[in-house]
Amino acid sequence: MSDVYEKVIDLARRRGFIWPTAECYGSVAGFIDYGPLGSMMKRRIEDLWRSFYVIQEGYYEIECPTIGQESIFIASGHVKGFSDKMVQCPHCREYHRADHVAEGHKVPGASTMSAENLGSALRDLPCPSCEKPFGEVEVFHFNLMFRTSIGPGSQRVGYLRPETAQGMFTDFQRLLRFYRDKLPFGAVQIGKSYRNEISPRQGMIRLREFTQAEAEIFVHPNEKSHPEFARYSGYTVPLLGIPQQEACTPVVPKTMHDAVQSGLIANEYVAYYLALTHDLFIRIGIKPEKIRFRQHLPDERAHYAEDCWDAEVFSERFGWVETVGIADRTDYDLRAHAGESGEDFSVFIQFDAPETVKKTVVVPSQKALGPKFRDKAKKITQALSEAAPVQGGITVNVDGEDLFIGPEFYEVREVETEIQGVNIIPHVIEPSYGIDRMCYAVLEHAYDEEIVEGEERKVMRFPPKIAPIQVAVFPLMSRDGLDTIARGITDALRKRGVLAEYDDSGAIGRRYRRQDEIGTPFAITVDYDTKEDGTVTIRDRDSMRQVRVAAADIPNLVHSLIEGTKGFSEICV
Amino acid sequence: MSDVYEKVIDLARRRGFIWPTAECYGSVAGFIDYGPLGSMMKRRIEDLWRSFYVIQEGYYEIECPTIGQESIFIASGHVKGFSDKMVQCPHCREYHRADHVAEGHKVPGASTMSAENLGSALRDLPCPSCEKPFGEVEVFHFNLMFRTSIGPGSQRVGYLRPETAQGMFTDFQRLLRFYRDKLPFGAVQIGKSYRNEISPRQGMIRLREFTQAEAEIFVHPNEKSHPEFARYSGYTVPLLGIPQQEACTPVVPKTMHDAVQSGLIANEYVAYYLALTHDLFIRIGIKPEKIRFRQHLPDERAHYAEDCWDAEVFSERFGWVETVGIADRTDYDLRAHAGESGEDFSVFIQFDAPETVKKTVVVPSQKALGPKFRDKAKKITQALSEAAPVQGGITVNVDGEDLFIGPEFYEVREVETEIQGVNIIPHVIEPSYGIDRMCYAVLEHAYDEEIVEGEERKVMRFPPKIAPIQVAVFPLMSRDGLDTIARGITDALRKRGVLAEYDDSGAIGRRYRRQDEIGTPFAITVDYDTKEDGTVTIRDRDSMRQVRVAAADIPNLVHSLIEGTKGFSEICV
Repeated sequence: MSDVYEKVIDLARRRGFIWPTAECYGSVAGFIDYGPLGSMMKRRIEDLWRSFYVIQEGYYEIECPTIGQESIFIASGHVKGFSDKMVQCPHCREYHRADHVAEGHKVPGASTMSAENLGSALRDLPCPSCEKPFGEVEVFHFNLMFRTSIGPGSQRVGYLRPETAQGMFTDFQRLLRFYRDKLPFGAVQIGKSYRNEISPRQGMIRLREFTQAEAEIFVHPNEKSHPEFARYSGYTVPLLGIPQQEACTPVVPKTMHDAVQSGLIANEYVAYYLALTHDLFIRIGIKPEKIRFRQHLPDERAHYAEDCWDAEVFSERFGWVETVGIADRTDYDLRAHAGESGEDFSVFIQFDAPETVKKTVVVPSQKALGPKFRDKAKKITQALSEAAPVQGGITVNVDGEDLFIGPEFYEVREVETEIQGVNIIPHVIEPSYGIDRMCYAVLEHAYDEEIVEGEERKVMRFPPKIAPIQVAVFPLMSRDGLDTIARGITDALRKRGVLAEYDDSGAIGRRYRRQDEIGTPFAITVDYDTKEDGTVTIRDRDSMRQVRVAAADIPNLVHSLIEGTKGFSEICV
Repeated sequence: MSDVYEKVIDLARRRGFIWPTAECYGSVAGFIDYGPLGSMMKRRIEDLWRSFYVIQEGYYEIECPTIGQESIFIASGHVKGFSDKMVQCPHCREYHRADHVAEGHKVPGASTMSAENLGSALRDLPCPSCEKPFGEVEVFHFNLMFRTSIGPGSQRVGYLRPETAQGMFTDFQRLLRFYRDKLPFGAVQIGKSYRNEISPRQGMIRLREFTQAEAEIFVHPNEKSHPEFARYSGYTVPLLGIPQQEACTPVVPKTMHDAVQSGLIANEYVAYYLALTHDLFIRIGIKPEKIRFRQHLPDERAHYAEDCWDAEVFSERFGWVETVGIADRTDYDLRAHAGESGEDFSVFIQFDAPETVKKTVVVPSQKALGPKFRDKAKKITQALSEAAPVQGGITVNVDGEDLFIGPEFYEVREVETEIQGVNIIPHVIEPSYGIDRMCYAVLEHAYDEEIVEGEERKVMRFPPKIAPIQVAVFPLMSRDGLDTIARGITDALRKRGVLAEYDDSGAIGRRYRRQDEIGTPFAITVDYDTKEDGTVTIRDRDSMRQVRVAAADIPNLVHSLIEGTKGFSEICV
């Protein structure tokens, strides 16, 4: 029996969820098409993401171009550091990820090895394509950004963004003004990102063009308590922290309150988005026993990050797959852009009341300096007032010349000054979601098969909010006016904002199976009783139970069932 | 006074609709950012578009990659023909669109001139940048696709798609199966497209990266009656057909029924989407007097197209701007992909009953052929039965050798055969929308200013469905519990799916003005009476009228006002 991956992909192709892209020309690895049902499901997942981040959290969405000029990615570090180690087989000319080949042969520490050492490690290993040993090969860095040029004459280099995040950073000053100069605030983006993978071979898991949903939340460096922490402080999440990984002990379930208190999670902001992510995963249909949050180990975490966790989802085919990253990136990004652009990326934090601070300063004595230093006196005065306040003489540099100024020429005094506030560079909390991986996980976890009345039933157990088609409407026969009634119900459902599909072809049992296979949660059947008493049957996909209800109630009833304000069992009384 | 463009762009920048992209690095022409409010508005416009094309028409959305392999664009003709004529000034090295420079100096027929003739026409004209005459220059073709390479080693050329349409064509066979092999059907895509413009200078009107919404509707070549034509047959649209353009007469308003009957519009499908586009334009807030539909003249229409119309929108700054194109592209696209890929792009149309057709065929005489040709007889028999049925001898080619077969070796006979159906290549009806141009038109047309109580009031008169913020909630004072009540109302609105913004800062008059400027259609104020009798005021942005209503009714009331099921004047009784 083929594994669940094969079955899911087969169903996804046949029924219009996921297609190979431009199949008629031979698809290129790392690209996929979302078909009619896949695209609908993906959009529902994105909208649910928005209901958390945009509606609940209040972080507005922005939309920046996918092509960016080089400076952005010089600042972000992608021009220099966003690369994989590659090797070309000298025999068959095929390209491979050098670390993946080494890992495949259990070379210890392959992922963190230098290019040189990887080259040596590969010498006796066989090329995965032609199976000849590599021999003397060079391992080199391959930048993963797609490069292009903007405008004619190739004057200007452009890159396809490797993440949506940079847009929120380069728009920082505009966003700050939009939020009326107050921290914390956040902005999000859902859109395409690109990574020119060397040889992607994992279907929807490793794509060259993919969809990200990222939030960048700008907070005061000393204020990392989430204002709504109460919402998730008692929420329990399965954690695989650094201690658990180092001691090789299993995942521990912890409330967010306890995880922050015990110091396992760095702060409330990070903990809050771990819990929110878990909450979101459950609602889109990822199975709770197949979710864990793994903390980055010190040697895999970026040097500037204060804490970083991956939400991992278990796949029968791919094992634990990193699907979301949640990090406290400190002020790294904004400082990098400030440095590269020369612009101001700080926020002025006004004190509640002006603060008086004591300061020790050097007060030059003009009277003494003038006669002694003449035309140099002015410059020396300036240099002294900027010098560190030490007793017993100060050496200043004037016009390239070091001059020792004796203590008789100045006084060290303590003064009081009033300041209104300070400029700080905010820290960034970044939850970053891989939408395509979430879509794959939802498909794999929803897939189910069972034997019903001696026949195999394939069913996609999507949550009703995520199912592409929300309800199917069948006339028992496509005559005697049953079809007209069924079409009327379909229209009424669509007007109520429910995506209903009318189907009158084939036996009713076959129609149910067709809908089961695409995960339609409910089906309405119009039969001859409908003409008598105005009732129809509504069938629940998962339990296959059916009940009769008034046709007139259908639009509101189905709407409630999809929104989850009512359960099917409640109407079965 | 600056023109409305300057004012709209100033407001759009200040308030977070449209921002220059990556401003801190000096923005690159042809790219923009949608800020928080612009992105929200754009999404609402896209969702309204979906409510027409996906929900009403039933054309499912798909999502294909923005990077495509070269074969796709060889088939589509973009590799060869998607270019503009460019000239580089020999003095200042600046690049220009050669036809635009010539047009700017009223050179007749500049847009259709050959590169050579354009070169001659430019000789004495001044360069728009340095103003020196061009002199001897070469005008050359510049391909407008952004080029990149996929994977390492630059083995594989990729292009950023210049339109979303190709995805629907390359997925044609999958789509056909999804729609159970029946015509007509359609598929849509909303997404990024790219054109590497030579020197874009028109803000949101000419972008290098832009959003398209395109539908490709596949129809039987002989059946171009839209099944739902009744919906728009009496709908009147302002038309500037070929006759009007040739006679220099003004736009004529015509019903779609009349336009099709009189032959002005080629068929019902094209007419239907003209009307639908007009309907959509009005609902997103484009002013009816600033819309016209202009038919392509024979020399601007693609040679294969049966009919083509542009929906043009009038802008104070840019004049009539092409915003949507609606074309009957015949079978051009599918034939092109069939030719390039060698795959089948036809649909089998089964007859209601098998048809008997008469056919003249060659019937080889085995008896005569055998003795004469021996081991070649079999191949000759085969070749004869595929040959054109002519009397008096047929020359056939067998194993590279031409053989004349005399009339004694075969018979020409008329036979009757039964056929079940035919394979046809569908025609494509394509409505293609430029979402960014629609967004700009909505901003420009919504902009208004008036004097209220001696002060200027700027107001964006967006339709409620399109306004980014749908309702504002103000406590009169941010104390005495008024703030708590107002926050409660904000939450209740959000739960009802309405995007409400709470604002307690500054005088109430200033708060109204702030919301007017971003086009928020309604504002709720909580005052001391609210605590007494549970009522609040609701204010209408356009009339500035206020009425008191029960706070408990607000969520449903505002929802109805936005959906348009209730008008503000109805609650003013």
